[in-house]
Amino acid sequence: MKTPHRESVLSRSARILEAFSQEEPALTVSEIARRAGLHVATASRLVAEMVGHGFLSRDVDRRVRIGVRLWELVTRASPTLSLRDTAMPFMEGVHDVVGHHVQLGVLDGEDVLFLERLSAPNAVINYTRIAGRLSLHASSSGLVLLAYGPTSVKEAVLSGPLIAYTSATPAAPARLRAVLAEVRQQGYAYCPGYVHQEALGIAAPVRGAEGAVVAALSVIVPNESSAHAVVPVVRTAARGISRALSAPPTGESRPDGNESAT
Amino acid sequence: MKTPHRESVLSRSARILEAFSQEEPALTVSEIARRAGLHVATASRLVAEMVGHGFLSRDVDRRVRIGVRLWELVTRASPTLSLRDTAMPFMEGVHDVVGHHVQLGVLDGEDVLFLERLSAPNAVINYTRIAGRLSLHASSSGLVLLAYGPTSVKEAVLSGPLIAYTSATPAAPARLRAVLAEVRQQGYAYCPGYVHQEALGIAAPVRGAEGAVVAALSVIVPNESSAHAVVPVVRTAARGISRALSAPPTGESRPDGNESAT
Repeated sequence: MKTPHRESVLSRSARILEAFSQEEPALTVSEIARRAGLHVATASRLVAEMVGHGFLSRDVDRRVRIGVRLWELVTRASPTLSLRDTAMPFMEGVHDVVGHHVQLGVLDGEDVLFLERLSAPNAVINYTRIAGRLSLHASSSGLVLLAYGPTSVKEAVLSGPLIAYTSATPAAPARLRAVLAEVRQQGYAYCPGYVHQEALGIAAPVRGAEGAVVAALSVIVPNESSAHAVVPVVRTAARGISRALSAPPTGESRPDGNESAT
Repeated sequence: MKTPHRESVLSRSARILEAFSQEEPALTVSEIARRAGLHVATASRLVAEMVGHGFLSRDVDRRVRIGVRLWELVTRASPTLSLRDTAMPFMEGVHDVVGHHVQLGVLDGEDVLFLERLSAPNAVINYTRIAGRLSLHASSSGLVLLAYGPTSVKEAVLSGPLIAYTSATPAAPARLRAVLAEVRQQGYAYCPGYVHQEALGIAAPVRGAEGAVVAALSVIVPNESSAHAVVPVVRTAARGISRALSAPPTGESRPDGNESAT
């Protein structure tokens, strides 16, 4: 009798957390109840408990948000923090030179999940955001992760529906197979107008210490032929991140990240 | 009978999440049980449920981590994402020019909680990290947040124990009051050797749309008199972030951050 109760509370808590989004990070209890499919009284009780544990917090106007405490617990032990920290100086270097958008994505399920994005004011149009997702077959990051990813994911994507965001999106299975073969052969993805006609994505694989591809580094620039010049910049930075991930930890050279004064 | 069960599950889940840290982001179930003060069988059951909901995940070697799904849910609706996103280009600019460490902190309880940090290789020693905390009375960010923060927090800090990290730390209440008055009068904090003798922190307040101080922008540089030249850089960037936070949202100029293609 205990297990169903536990499952139920955690399952409901998960649905409550899922109710929030980047567009709507603050919700009333009745909005939460509706989105989570819970009675208002149930949602109200559970929200109060989650606020008590710092999972959620309440604004002055009583609207509810993700709690800073939960953000802290998840971020400080983030499954992605060391990858992101290692990649960040390389991403900043690319951003300084190329401008526009520089981003880091990982494979999660059948999506690319973006861990980090640096954007310049007035950069070209781009649909990614931090903790946002894009389809594997359409985005340059996704094509890299798919090309070097597990066969099971590749087959699932190839047999599933493939949305054509533009006429350039590789939305036919035969074309997608050819694109993936090309990515593996070239070592990078070059995607003019696949997600939006005005934008061009270039992505290269980032390998972990064991040699497996763990992430994709990408830039989004205007869809112009001059974008070819950016390819070596992206590939070089992706290689640099891979080498840094494989380097043995050097405690002495990073005194800042390894201890706390409190 | 239902409510105690619910409280108990969430409370235990919170303790389990608290078991992880930046130093130890992956733990065995028995390590989790010990840190969370739970029986191994209880921890094991709850961890399995949390894995099922994506709150936690299991490595190939069966060690447990924070789940990527929980990271995604918390990050995409992060209570701090819009502040961090607004501050990021200003922080990058400071980092390009000053190097070393540039960081953004907010007041949380009686600590400064760091939302973001940019660091250069071979930068001067620094104890901050993303989602890390420092004492309010010792760090430049903390002194800014304390100087402009609620009186209740100021009184609590002044009446509590004040750790002297170095001989320069304002760890005597009278000196701390004088430092806070100076911060308010100058509009910034200048902290040579307060946390570590070799490092100097400079911080300036970031104000939100309503004019209240919502964060502190800081740099950590070597503890040398030339650091004075950095003060206007930090103040200018903090003002810039404040103005950007007060600007009305311009949907047209930021097409990238406001919609998703999936």
